[in-house]
Amino acid sequence: MEKLKEYVSVKDEDHFYHQGAVELLIFNFLLILTILTIWLFKNHRFRFLHETGGAMLYGLVMGLIIRYVTKSPDVESGTIYECEKLKSGPSTLLINITNQVYEYQYKREISHHNVNGHQGNAMLQKMTFDPSIFFNILLPPIIFHAGYSLKKRHFFRNLGSILTYAFLGTAISCIVIGLIMYGFVKAMVHIGQLKQWEFHFTDCLFFGSLMSATDPVTVLAIFHELNVDTDLYTLLFGESVLNDAVAIVLTHSISIYSPKENPNAFDAAAFFQSVGNFLGIFAGSFAMGSSYAVVTALISFMHLTKFTKLCEFPMLETGLFFLLSWSAFLSAEAAGLTGIVAVLFCGVTQAHYTYNNLSPDSKMRTKQLFEFMNFLAENVIFCYMGLALFTFQNHIFNPLFIFGALVAVFVARASNIYPLSFLLNLGRKQKIPWNFQHMMMFSGLRGAIAFALAIRDTESQPKQMMFSTALLMVFFTVWVFGGGTTPMLTWLQIRVGIDPDEDLNVKAASQSASNLDKNTTKAESAWLFRIWYGFDHKYLKPLLTHTGPPLTSTLPEWCHPVARLLTSPSAYGDQLKDGDAVYIINNDELTENYESSAHIPVPAQDSTGSLQATGKEDIQEGDIGLGGYKLQLQQTAGQPQKNSLA
Amino acid sequence: MEKLKEYVSVKDEDHFYHQGAVELLIFNFLLILTILTIWLFKNHRFRFLHETGGAMLYGLVMGLIIRYVTKSPDVESGTIYECEKLKSGPSTLLINITNQVYEYQYKREISHHNVNGHQGNAMLQKMTFDPSIFFNILLPPIIFHAGYSLKKRHFFRNLGSILTYAFLGTAISCIVIGLIMYGFVKAMVHIGQLKQWEFHFTDCLFFGSLMSATDPVTVLAIFHELNVDTDLYTLLFGESVLNDAVAIVLTHSISIYSPKENPNAFDAAAFFQSVGNFLGIFAGSFAMGSSYAVVTALISFMHLTKFTKLCEFPMLETGLFFLLSWSAFLSAEAAGLTGIVAVLFCGVTQAHYTYNNLSPDSKMRTKQLFEFMNFLAENVIFCYMGLALFTFQNHIFNPLFIFGALVAVFVARASNIYPLSFLLNLGRKQKIPWNFQHMMMFSGLRGAIAFALAIRDTESQPKQMMFSTALLMVFFTVWVFGGGTTPMLTWLQIRVGIDPDEDLNVKAASQSASNLDKNTTKAESAWLFRIWYGFDHKYLKPLLTHTGPPLTSTLPEWCHPVARLLTSPSAYGDQLKDGDAVYIINNDELTENYESSAHIPVPAQDSTGSLQATGKEDIQEGDIGLGGYKLQLQQTAGQPQKNSLA
Repeated sequence: MEKLKEYVSVKDEDHFYHQGAVELLIFNFLLILTILTIWLFKNHRFRFLHETGGAMLYGLVMGLIIRYVTKSPDVESGTIYECEKLKSGPSTLLINITNQVYEYQYKREISHHNVNGHQGNAMLQKMTFDPSIFFNILLPPIIFHAGYSLKKRHFFRNLGSILTYAFLGTAISCIVIGLIMYGFVKAMVHIGQLKQWEFHFTDCLFFGSLMSATDPVTVLAIFHELNVDTDLYTLLFGESVLNDAVAIVLTHSISIYSPKENPNAFDAAAFFQSVGNFLGIFAGSFAMGSSYAVVTALISFMHLTKFTKLCEFPMLETGLFFLLSWSAFLSAEAAGLTGIVAVLFCGVTQAHYTYNNLSPDSKMRTKQLFEFMNFLAENVIFCYMGLALFTFQNHIFNPLFIFGALVAVFVARASNIYPLSFLLNLGRKQKIPWNFQHMMMFSGLRGAIAFALAIRDTESQPKQMMFSTALLMVFFTVWVFGGGTTPMLTWLQIRVGIDPDEDLNVKAASQSASNLDKNTTKAESAWLFRIWYGFDHKYLKPLLTHTGPPLTSTLPEWCHPVARLLTSPSAYGDQLKDGDAVYIINNDELTENYESSAHIPVPAQDSTGSLQATGKEDIQEGDIGLGGYKLQLQQTAGQPQKNSLA
Repeated sequence: MEKLKEYVSVKDEDHFYHQGAVELLIFNFLLILTILTIWLFKNHRFRFLHETGGAMLYGLVMGLIIRYVTKSPDVESGTIYECEKLKSGPSTLLINITNQVYEYQYKREISHHNVNGHQGNAMLQKMTFDPSIFFNILLPPIIFHAGYSLKKRHFFRNLGSILTYAFLGTAISCIVIGLIMYGFVKAMVHIGQLKQWEFHFTDCLFFGSLMSATDPVTVLAIFHELNVDTDLYTLLFGESVLNDAVAIVLTHSISIYSPKENPNAFDAAAFFQSVGNFLGIFAGSFAMGSSYAVVTALISFMHLTKFTKLCEFPMLETGLFFLLSWSAFLSAEAAGLTGIVAVLFCGVTQAHYTYNNLSPDSKMRTKQLFEFMNFLAENVIFCYMGLALFTFQNHIFNPLFIFGALVAVFVARASNIYPLSFLLNLGRKQKIPWNFQHMMMFSGLRGAIAFALAIRDTESQPKQMMFSTALLMVFFTVWVFGGGTTPMLTWLQIRVGIDPDEDLNVKAASQSASNLDKNTTKAESAWLFRIWYGFDHKYLKPLLTHTGPPLTSTLPEWCHPVARLLTSPSAYGDQLKDGDAVYIINNDELTENYESSAHIPVPAQDSTGSLQATGKEDIQEGDIGLGGYKLQLQQTAGQPQKNSLA
């Protein structure tokens, strides 16, 4: 008898294991389908439905099947039981049912209106996985990869504009969406679709902040494939990556903005607390991410030079690199900061310093590993978004709200891009032309971050309405705008097929022919950038990597004993080679070069010189290529590596 | 007021997110420490505590800290609540507590005696993660990697012996441990430490089967680093990998062996049902794993030749490869088979067929990816085993039982290795010498699989006792025997520093000098192997890969239209090259070669010929090197790949 019961319990347990396997299998199946589709699309150069759109479509179909084919086997799950003895929900609950004790784990607080019939469908429930999986597992590799593959030279050249779009633009977008949605909410209350107390202005702002996160994946993949104009690419890439970070922190700040009295009235103290909170979290996350990267750089640097060769064991090097980068994320989360922001800046800093210290094998390994993780995570997210339309159990689709969101998102994007571009063009030497502005307007897709922020809290009815609307916006923008990217590029006559390295000079030369206002003031960012570049090149690079001039030549005389201790022996060997690099920097290479080539249409000698200089800088900085994987792969496929048979 | 409550709930949620981050951070920290230690050990050529032992040590210390520093904050969790309305435990429980509905998820059935004070310590609870994570996430990459990196030539040469040790040896070991433990249990009942009804003979057999899984990680890592004699390496590697698969299926079969009446009496029907179950699950898992690999081979083959170049997109190729291999595991689990067995044979088949179809870039990528995943999973498991000693909440340490297990494990290992080696030596041309047998006896470490099988069910007191004992056995064997491997190798005068490729000929030559009984009958395995080899080479390889002779030359005349359709164009190009390969096969290369070099001490011409043949076969079979990562890394570090800067 006892044996039999044990047998049953083993069976039960097995059933649970198999459940988990089935769900993972569904995801695997969707991903395999997606990969085969990508391959088919690539093969036939089909660009009207992008692969991310395809992944969503497959997810959608699978969600439909799961929803209407699987049945709810568990009738007891929908019932609410009373418990008078408890005063709050403990994290673990032990319940005695017919003399058997069962252990239950706390999952969440649930509103009465959410208790519906689908609650008990175990399949649906398991497919809608925990939002924390998004934030802790799926997003970090994508964001890290974005930071790690940042094209630094072009990024820094447009730093001022990117920061303006990311910070100011996101704030504008958030406020505009918030205001428009508040108008629509008022209208909905007026016609009786909504109760007044359910939807405050802060809720509208919350929706505005989460809908302000634009997606870097879909459009940029197409841009990269087509080798679109590098400046446009960099502006969009920089904007959408940084804007994600800003939107995440902004959403958090708004969600904890809690005026003491009337929630609709403006509370200055609470507002400034939120602003302070925003700045504190952003700065803290930035510091956390960078410091982990600096630690990694130091460890790999020490190993490389002072002690022994960690680079003889690329596996250990890669492991350390991976774990320290992930730790940056986790530490920020554990400290109450924003892990995504930390991991973004960790990626940027890793690419800038640590990458130089890695062995060639590790450089390749880390790049491929992060590329692969990014690829998988991206596709899982898009499949999941498709699934969520049918598997999420508490959708509230309100046509007026959805229409409002659609209007709000477009107005907000327009009032972000056009006014800011106008302002930026006042200061920029190299203007942002109209077709670029239109393309940026068109590329305001919503994607993973907006979805992840919306799914994080779906408890109250307003939040559920926001989630459903955000999901529809993602579908709409990815399918319509993602699919329309290639026609739009043609229509706006934006140049494609540009070699990003030659671009600088070609642009400068063409600029000199067309655009003759050379006497505009230098952009602020260039000035800021030069100071940073000098400091970085003279002190940080020699300290953290084995490139750049030795510290002994850059630090003042009295620091020499310390400098000698900290300098890599290989830097001494490079002293001669780096001599001219220092010369170039001291002679203000970055503006000098640029301006001189802008003066003379095709300055043969100078252009070659600058090509050499930039090429060299590329190698020194360990620039690791753009975000997408296609170009990269085609290149490496062209030069097959020798495969050693052990 | 409502706002405030929402605020609190957001805070609560945040708290939950951060908890997860803290635990992952602890693991990250342990892994970083382990990597730094490995690097230190490697640097100082320190081999008395192996890195896996180090990982366990760190886990142990961390477990101690967590156990005695963190406190139980949640008093209500230890209480059991009554619920009369329910008849069985639903998968989701909704409870109304002070007008708030909380959702609880079913975790497990719990025995009354397991409800103790530590139940409520959330930190401890979260650190002891779900056993299904072991089986679904951590073990598959390790086992797949073992299969993928199998050194096929040596493996097949010793196939008969390996199968004998794996199947017969594991069965012997299981029965011997079961019998000895039953004796100890009887003694414990006699002195009153245990109640008779708690521990049946089947429980003892269950313990025997889980303790029969030997660990391939620690010893083989050392062997690989030292380049120990290839035959000994292959015997141990093959045995421990296959033996894991056998032990897992055996444990499952024993756990569902349920005699109808007296559990101590022998029930023939139930016994044969278990045996049938064992065979069915093993064969089913084998078929599942191989068929997924064949599908992968076909897809990659088709892409390569018939349609277009999937190999132009190594990322897609790698992704497909990874997902299909994982799907093999998940499908087997979902179908009620054993995923680990499926993934092992999937790995072997992938290495044999699919690997040949991959682009050079993908070969490198898949190899590095699986190496990396294997490395991480391995170290996580060993850290976790260290942690579990202090964080697992229901340990039962019984000195007599532990002593019994220690004795049983040694007796069982001895009655596995020595008698089977004696029997095998009767049939083997090339004997297994005494020092090899002693080394195999010594290398019977217990590791991840034994632990994973034991942690899968820790509900009843006997199972808890088994788990605690298994954990101690892992510690003991890894520290003592793992640490003692290098001295033991010296003491037994086993050759180290052997180039695995030259080994075949050197061995054959030395064999001819020392061992003169050339007229022993050919081993069964060689005969079986030759048939398989011929079939594989003539039909499967040309069908699934683009190596080997074209199907048009191997299939009968009337099949030519089909054959032409299925043959890769590149195979036609290789026709001439493959002509002599067919010749070698037809002339019974494998024994021919071997015997001829055994006859003449150093047959200059023949030896070169066989070297060429084996070298060529290596390339054709896409042999991808041995399991460990160290040698590989040193080799690749020696030939740094060109790193293309995009």
